[in-house]
Amino acid sequence: MEHVVIIGAGFGGLYAARALRREPVRVTVIDRRNHHTFQPLLYQVATAGLSASDIAAPVRRVLRKQKNTSVLLAEVTAIDPAQKRVIFEDGGIGYDKLIVAAGASHSYFGHDEWAAFAPGLKTVDDALEIRRRVLLAFEAAERETDPARRDAWMTFVVVGAGPTGVELAGALSELARHTLVREFRHINPCEARIILLEGAGQVLPSYVPELGEKARQQLVALNVDVRTNCLVTRIDEEGVSIGDRRIEARTVLWGAGVAASPLARTLGAPLDRAGRVLVQPDLTVPGHEDIYVVGDLASLKQEDGTPVPGVAPAAIQEGRHAARNIARTLRGQPRLPFRYHDRGSMATIGRAAAVADFGRLKLSGFVAWLAWLFVHVLFLIGFRNRFVVLFSWALSYVTYERASRLITGETPPLVEAARAPALEPRKDDGAAWTRPMPEHART
Amino acid sequence: MEHVVIIGAGFGGLYAARALRREPVRVTVIDRRNHHTFQPLLYQVATAGLSASDIAAPVRRVLRKQKNTSVLLAEVTAIDPAQKRVIFEDGGIGYDKLIVAAGASHSYFGHDEWAAFAPGLKTVDDALEIRRRVLLAFEAAERETDPARRDAWMTFVVVGAGPTGVELAGALSELARHTLVREFRHINPCEARIILLEGAGQVLPSYVPELGEKARQQLVALNVDVRTNCLVTRIDEEGVSIGDRRIEARTVLWGAGVAASPLARTLGAPLDRAGRVLVQPDLTVPGHEDIYVVGDLASLKQEDGTPVPGVAPAAIQEGRHAARNIARTLRGQPRLPFRYHDRGSMATIGRAAAVADFGRLKLSGFVAWLAWLFVHVLFLIGFRNRFVVLFSWALSYVTYERASRLITGETPPLVEAARAPALEPRKDDGAAWTRPMPEHART
Repeated sequence: MEHVVIIGAGFGGLYAARALRREPVRVTVIDRRNHHTFQPLLYQVATAGLSASDIAAPVRRVLRKQKNTSVLLAEVTAIDPAQKRVIFEDGGIGYDKLIVAAGASHSYFGHDEWAAFAPGLKTVDDALEIRRRVLLAFEAAERETDPARRDAWMTFVVVGAGPTGVELAGALSELARHTLVREFRHINPCEARIILLEGAGQVLPSYVPELGEKARQQLVALNVDVRTNCLVTRIDEEGVSIGDRRIEARTVLWGAGVAASPLARTLGAPLDRAGRVLVQPDLTVPGHEDIYVVGDLASLKQEDGTPVPGVAPAAIQEGRHAARNIARTLRGQPRLPFRYHDRGSMATIGRAAAVADFGRLKLSGFVAWLAWLFVHVLFLIGFRNRFVVLFSWALSYVTYERASRLITGETPPLVEAARAPALEPRKDDGAAWTRPMPEHART
Repeated sequence: MEHVVIIGAGFGGLYAARALRREPVRVTVIDRRNHHTFQPLLYQVATAGLSASDIAAPVRRVLRKQKNTSVLLAEVTAIDPAQKRVIFEDGGIGYDKLIVAAGASHSYFGHDEWAAFAPGLKTVDDALEIRRRVLLAFEAAERETDPARRDAWMTFVVVGAGPTGVELAGALSELARHTLVREFRHINPCEARIILLEGAGQVLPSYVPELGEKARQQLVALNVDVRTNCLVTRIDEEGVSIGDRRIEARTVLWGAGVAASPLARTLGAPLDRAGRVLVQPDLTVPGHEDIYVVGDLASLKQEDGTPVPGVAPAAIQEGRHAARNIARTLRGQPRLPFRYHDRGSMATIGRAAAVADFGRLKLSGFVAWLAWLFVHVLFLIGFRNRFVVLFSWALSYVTYERASRLITGETPPLVEAARAPALEPRKDDGAAWTRPMPEHART
């Protein structure tokens, strides 16, 4: 029986595996994480609205009943098309057919040094790191007595106004203005500044200008400071530079560039500028008809010349299509070219605010938000997830409370970090800090 | 207005703060974490039954409506009774009255080098680390081809059969035998060995022998290998030694010793052998009538000579009592001695299995489990938590599924780690690994 190896258990890999469940093949799904992540809702984990397990399902559980499939937790470091082998850090496995669905990570446009100051949002661990930074920033602001430093803690910059950036900025604003309000005694979380920077001329550059403008209006209504035509030239621990303009901000989040998995390079196939594999119309790699690439790692032009977008529905359709072509090959049938069915695109901006583009039907506001909610909860894998997510959403809609406001991991010293380098313990810190207390006692 | 500082937002600190909400004082609660942790359910997070946010509530949120109270995120490093100041890593604050509720961490009985190999369970981060190790162990076993090494990955040792150890062992057994079953292709999770080691002569040494025996029977029914009178003499990366007997186990969990917070030492007050502060009957520190110590950090003998136990109800009662004594002092009334009201103790062993000791009424099995569930969900802080926890419980009771099976953080190489040191990449690893595949394909 032929052995189909699938690298990656994101949307592309998982739907490919499912589509092979009744085919006469044995399937091995390899991922470096034990869970499938529902990426469209990651921003909710990053902003404490959902907990990580609400939007992640163990890959083993999802594929448990699929008898012809095993799951391996392993980090793939290279593909060897000559030997027909996939190489791990700690082993390897042979294949007859290979589906590469390894996805993408962030690109800092050649400024990898920005990564430490501006985390992106691709994995559960990324989301937990962003949540930690955002919640710690308010805690540090509460303890900081120097006004300029406090303002820097209260300033949040999101770089890139694609769907991820828009969702993050909107959710951050709601977190500050509704959830945290009245919980602090020395700061007013409503005064937090959320700044959304975009290099292009409109919000949601991949959308029609009409919806970009609607999204901008909804963001402004949420008090987000939206700045288009802003190219970031520097990010450091203290803030962001746009040419000679400077924003002092202790929390910077990255929603801009996407870089293909470095696995693509090990295939020896032609790549596009973003490092994605230029696949044939049937999704195979030129010169290797036993290797398919799907999802964010694949670069393919549609008949009208536009590229297949890097979104979940495209990855799902490509995964299924690769599986279908493998099955056809086994039956001696020719492989079919892939055609992307665009069922529309949506981005949510906040509580009851979203934009949706279903071709002729363009929605914004509450109706778009309901559509967004419906589609996303529908596609969440696992009954419990769907139920808990809907319940959390309904509850936070009514109460504005966010359910998952945990800071996990190390807590750095908050005040020391905010000060100019001072290696000796400063005995006056405490006195400075206790000063504002009597004011609070009067409120 | 007098300033009451409370160190620690566990049960003792939080209930003390709540009891002061209508008193003419200003209150500052300091914790190094932003959340109150419902410790009795931590073992459920460690075994993937609940997610971290289900059992943790932001301290700010809990105290949000209490106008006289502020919350600070800070790590207290020392107390200076002479200056009446609490010292942080990065600052400090003065007090008029102080309630120290800093709790306890693990004690490895002088073997601090065991900490790296046998994590304990006191914080959310501890629980997530245990969850990571347990889930990774099964993943590593699935990939391991050497039978002895695979057995070591499939062996889980819990040291200490107090309530935490008993709960962990029971939940681990259910995780292996019910939740993970049928999800692996090369191992059978049912064959996992769960070994519970206890130095004393019975399970649950602080309980009456009758209930200890019931607990042992229920553990044995869950396939847990219970060994009493077993003093661990060595723990390393490969397993556990009990004198000259050896258990090869890659996962060891620590449920044995408890060590008082090192803060106790900075008070200059008399300590007991475990490092806890020997408080006066009114819960103040000898020589410092403005400093109270409550919860796990306090050591106090009851009238009958038995110590107040280190359990949540005792911490709650002590926290409230310290608050009451502060209020009485402000009104010029004398402080009252603390009396512990023992409402019983309970430990859960697994699905529908528990023991409970309400004095004359001693329960075990399903009834005890229902009582346990009722009391614990009742005391969970926050409506959403209660609801979600009950729902998760009901669902996992019916389906045996555990809701939160995420491995977060770094995934180390699984197979390399299991092998003898081999610094060069081993090209034969892959071949070894692929060998068992055809067998699986036949199933």
